[in-house]
Amino acid sequence: MELLKKRILSEGRVMGEDVLKVDMFLNHQIDVGLLGEIGKEFHTRFAGKNINKILTVEASGIGIACITAQQFSVPVVFAKKGYNRNVGNDIFLSDVFSFTKGENTKIGVSRSFIGPNDRVLIIDDFLANGEAVNGLIGILNQAGATLCGVGIVIEKAYQKGGRLLREKGVDIQSLVIIKSMKGGKIEFV
Amino acid sequence: MELLKKRILSEGRVMGEDVLKVDMFLNHQIDVGLLGEIGKEFHTRFAGKNINKILTVEASGIGIACITAQQFSVPVVFAKKGYNRNVGNDIFLSDVFSFTKGENTKIGVSRSFIGPNDRVLIIDDFLANGEAVNGLIGILNQAGATLCGVGIVIEKAYQKGGRLLREKGVDIQSLVIIKSMKGGKIEFV
Repeated sequence: MELLKKRILSEGRVMGEDVLKVDMFLNHQIDVGLLGEIGKEFHTRFAGKNINKILTVEASGIGIACITAQQFSVPVVFAKKGYNRNVGNDIFLSDVFSFTKGENTKIGVSRSFIGPNDRVLIIDDFLANGEAVNGLIGILNQAGATLCGVGIVIEKAYQKGGRLLREKGVDIQSLVIIKSMKGGKIEFV
Repeated sequence: MELLKKRILSEGRVMGEDVLKVDMFLNHQIDVGLLGEIGKEFHTRFAGKNINKILTVEASGIGIACITAQQFSVPVVFAKKGYNRNVGNDIFLSDVFSFTKGENTKIGVSRSFIGPNDRVLIIDDFLANGEAVNGLIGILNQAGATLCGVGIVIEKAYQKGGRLLREKGVDIQSLVIIKSMKGGKIEFV
């Protein structure tokens, strides 16, 4: 997606060789016009898959998921963070390891909002090691829902998440794939 | 907003006499069509105020803020939770007491995304004691930004937040105001 590559090159900031900050338009300040274009692109890429629900995880996935959901005319469900083990039986729980924070967190979705009849598109801002997406897939599996695809705004090809998920046959569509940020220079695939 | 009252009456669940669960359409599962109507209503109510930015707090405010921002054609900034005191000088911090959790949390916004030229609309899902809104106003004050108004989806009139903010002269527009939930029966103002 050329529009997104341009924004990343003009406004993104590389920290070290691994962290790309895009918090001026994607995940702290949010350009909703850009999200509109992102939503249209996801709709094109996942057309014909009979998606009836979009699943994401708080917080940075929510805006992208909501504006994408307008294109599909389906509801969004977002997994919440910070559950503990004693949450009762009403919640599907999944573990997510955060490399940024160096710790496990539990994400959860109420059993009321996901079930065997759901055909789900997972949406998230970044795909690196795939921890968040795998956690969300774990919730879909517990619910008996169908995973129709994963839409990612920015994938880092030099981390293993995308490769491992594609090897499992998951339909991942990443709008931008970054090959390397060596020396602070962003190279796209 | 009649559409919203109907949804609350048909799908909302009252827990005790104080908690209204609307997580099937507003803040866990999200009906983006309803958010579209909410966004149009906020746009009507705050027209002519030259708003150039919408501020909310993660997580449940983000979807509402993003879809409202489409109407205004302005960016969203969301305050992040869980900062600690040693966050450095790049973040405006504010304390928010959560009655649900019984604890203080710090919310923060990067200094890059809010400043003296901003004319800001604050958006949130609920207004009860006003803790979150007051925290966001604290951030605007530190930034020297102008508060143009506060848009709330559901206000609880029997808690003090709305009254105290109106006494300070804040332009609060709540789409639905709940007078009482005694005996599990929802009464609107």
